[in-house]
Amino acid sequence: MDIVVLGSGNVATHFGKALSDAGHRVVQVYSRTKANAKILASAVKADAIDKLAELDLDADVYLIAVKDDAIGQVVTQLPSSLEGAVVHTAGSVDIEIFAAHVKRYGVMYPVQTFSIAKSVDFSMVPIALEASDEATYTQLVRLAGSVSKRCFFCDSRQRLALHIAAVFACNFTNHFYAIGADILGEYSLDFDLIRPLILETAQKIMAHQPQEVQTGPAIRNDIGTMQKHLKLLEQSHQDLVSLYRQMSERIYSN
Amino acid sequence: MDIVVLGSGNVATHFGKALSDAGHRVVQVYSRTKANAKILASAVKADAIDKLAELDLDADVYLIAVKDDAIGQVVTQLPSSLEGAVVHTAGSVDIEIFAAHVKRYGVMYPVQTFSIAKSVDFSMVPIALEASDEATYTQLVRLAGSVSKRCFFCDSRQRLALHIAAVFACNFTNHFYAIGADILGEYSLDFDLIRPLILETAQKIMAHQPQEVQTGPAIRNDIGTMQKHLKLLEQSHQDLVSLYRQMSERIYSN
Repeated sequence: MDIVVLGSGNVATHFGKALSDAGHRVVQVYSRTKANAKILASAVKADAIDKLAELDLDADVYLIAVKDDAIGQVVTQLPSSLEGAVVHTAGSVDIEIFAAHVKRYGVMYPVQTFSIAKSVDFSMVPIALEASDEATYTQLVRLAGSVSKRCFFCDSRQRLALHIAAVFACNFTNHFYAIGADILGEYSLDFDLIRPLILETAQKIMAHQPQEVQTGPAIRNDIGTMQKHLKLLEQSHQDLVSLYRQMSERIYSN
Repeated sequence: MDIVVLGSGNVATHFGKALSDAGHRVVQVYSRTKANAKILASAVKADAIDKLAELDLDADVYLIAVKDDAIGQVVTQLPSSLEGAVVHTAGSVDIEIFAAHVKRYGVMYPVQTFSIAKSVDFSMVPIALEASDEATYTQLVRLAGSVSKRCFFCDSRQRLALHIAAVFACNFTNHFYAIGADILGEYSLDFDLIRPLILETAQKIMAHQPQEVQTGPAIRNDIGTMQKHLKLLEQSHQDLVSLYRQMSERIYSN
């Protein structure tokens, strides 16, 4: 298919390259900052544009991968006459954002965290699909299916819940890694000491449900150990005392 | 060295087997439940005992790997005449627990989470070492160094901090995985959908500091998305509203 990518960030870059690698033709990359558009455009041999007035009107799919709160602005600037499917990639933006503006639309939300520095095997990335009509849905199944083996239907409400689950399991989890790093630094210990533990914790739930493999003082109701932890936190990390208590109570009562 | 393992749980099993594989002789495995002692004993060709009165008095090292709150009980029952080093493996138990009871003692705390079902490459497990005296420390460096490349000195206070960091980065993190699974289940979505994301999140910090790779709505201060998340949580997971707010505030202000 002929695709226009709108956006030049992490999702636009990884998704755009994966689509190009799968044999689709990325015809244009749009970004408000032309230099950013050019980086992705040159990687996928597309034209770089920085004005929506220059948009190719004959593409099969317009993939909007900009910041969540900028999607609305982009959509309202698109010509309502477009025949191609207009699609966004966000977890928490309802499909109805398109309804008053374009004819055919949908969502392809890749459930993964992308960084510029690290490549990701797109074939294993689950992609949540939703569309305005059956023909468009079929088109998105073909398109997403050409880059990933794990495409599935997901309505906007489910997708929002999926995004929240991802925030807990990815963003909030990363902050716990950061808390670990902080505590270690305070006691002149290197973050590297808990890296194997972090990796093992994630690998363990690849084949198990997390509830089944919960470990630590809270699940054992090891009050002595938890009291030692709280005493040290009260001395050096007062801001973590309440969070430690809450998490321990949740784990024990789960 | 000749080693007696006291305990038959996950740490005793993984540590005992690693020491045996490294060429040491596990002479006895003690557990209050003989059947449990026998399982590990047969794996490492040791004798199984369930009474401390039967303890081999000539071992080089007595490795106590029982529950944290049972270490004290075991230590007080040991003959004070023992010449071997008495060592525990716990993160949060001060080395002073031994002082009034045995002559030579120490700590070897492996910073890893162990499960019966899953084997671990012990050579990559950091081991925190502490000892009553220099000769014993040297002995523990040799012993721990024969199973792991990553042994380091760590006093009891540092070790307690290290254990707290591990609780956040492993135990509390696993509970966030469980919260993710709960939310997904509520919306008829499979936990498998976020497994690649969880693994990628852990893998990403193998080469980075967690603060550098924080992603998600909180770090971007994407208020619109956070409000959508909170609205859905208020409807279906009221108990998570305050936790979501706290975590987001911590991430944004970090």
